[in-house]
Amino acid sequence: MTARGPIVVTIPEGDNRERLTCPDCGFINYENPKIVVGSVAAWEDRILLCRRAIEPRRGFWTLPAGYLELNETTDASAAREALEEACAEIAIEGLLAVYSVPRISQIQLIYRARLVSPNVAAGEESLEVGLFRWEEIPWKDIAFPSVHWALNHFRDFRSDGDTAARTNPPGELGNATPDGHRGPGRATEGV
Amino acid sequence: MTARGPIVVTIPEGDNRERLTCPDCGFINYENPKIVVGSVAAWEDRILLCRRAIEPRRGFWTLPAGYLELNETTDASAAREALEEACAEIAIEGLLAVYSVPRISQIQLIYRARLVSPNVAAGEESLEVGLFRWEEIPWKDIAFPSVHWALNHFRDFRSDGDTAARTNPPGELGNATPDGHRGPGRATEGV
Repeated sequence: MTARGPIVVTIPEGDNRERLTCPDCGFINYENPKIVVGSVAAWEDRILLCRRAIEPRRGFWTLPAGYLELNETTDASAAREALEEACAEIAIEGLLAVYSVPRISQIQLIYRARLVSPNVAAGEESLEVGLFRWEEIPWKDIAFPSVHWALNHFRDFRSDGDTAARTNPPGELGNATPDGHRGPGRATEGV
Repeated sequence: MTARGPIVVTIPEGDNRERLTCPDCGFINYENPKIVVGSVAAWEDRILLCRRAIEPRRGFWTLPAGYLELNETTDASAAREALEEACAEIAIEGLLAVYSVPRISQIQLIYRARLVSPNVAAGEESLEVGLFRWEEIPWKDIAFPSVHWALNHFRDFRSDGDTAARTNPPGELGNATPDGHRGPGRATEGV
């Protein structure tokens, strides 16, 4: 038989929102927001960045981050992503920020972390990785708005020492880069 | 035809984890962790609690909290839940805690909040709501371990003023109440 899956928009009995349902088997696909976990990991005054080997935004720089897995804690997830994407061992120091990107139903938890050693290397999802001093960060080739937010919030933390979790910059919902760039693909958050 | 839905455990081609797939239509159900957002909302020295009108843990007391909806920010979600469950208007003051309950793939974001007024009333999912001084809290009838955590972390915050987001108490993963109760249902987190 033809595989169709949940492709029909309908409001199931007893529900009050539209859901995707499968016309073949009756399955209701309850969609939920997704959780991305990542870190700003530093070795002294240098910050770990990864150049993406995957779409979206292949070739652009991002923080080690990815989707939280089932049965995983958030700090274990941040450590796993740093290991997978940059072969980096990190020690988590605190929660830097919680960002909401409502357009794509995504929540990002970004931790402050210390690299246990400066030995980093590209994992499967990275073309290359690097440790950057502030003025060396490839600002024009950053993958997502929230990477800008997190880098700036990390610098703020190093300046003010305020350990409270930061949130989206005023008026920013992840639809454009903070510096105003709006080229093709630049408005898209991803992991 | 019989509605079966995604009930077959298999590793899809090109994947590396087991997923539930539907034998009728071939749909792959990629499960993701779920995000619960809530608040410890206070009016002066009294804290808002809601007695649950729904399972699990019907009749027990909890914080206003629930699943983040699609396209919603986390602070909007916390405010919505307080309104829905306790007809309460809250002003969010900061992120109190991020808890992981990996057994059920749940992340909880709990905010510190101020009640805009002490006028609260039971919403559809609550049997009753109330404002409790610390010594009046119905400790033996608290719905979930993480409610204990959040109440204690809120008191810690009022004592030490530390605005850093708290996390699971050491060794606690939401499998039992901190006070050691392990009766039927007590080990279950829910919203």
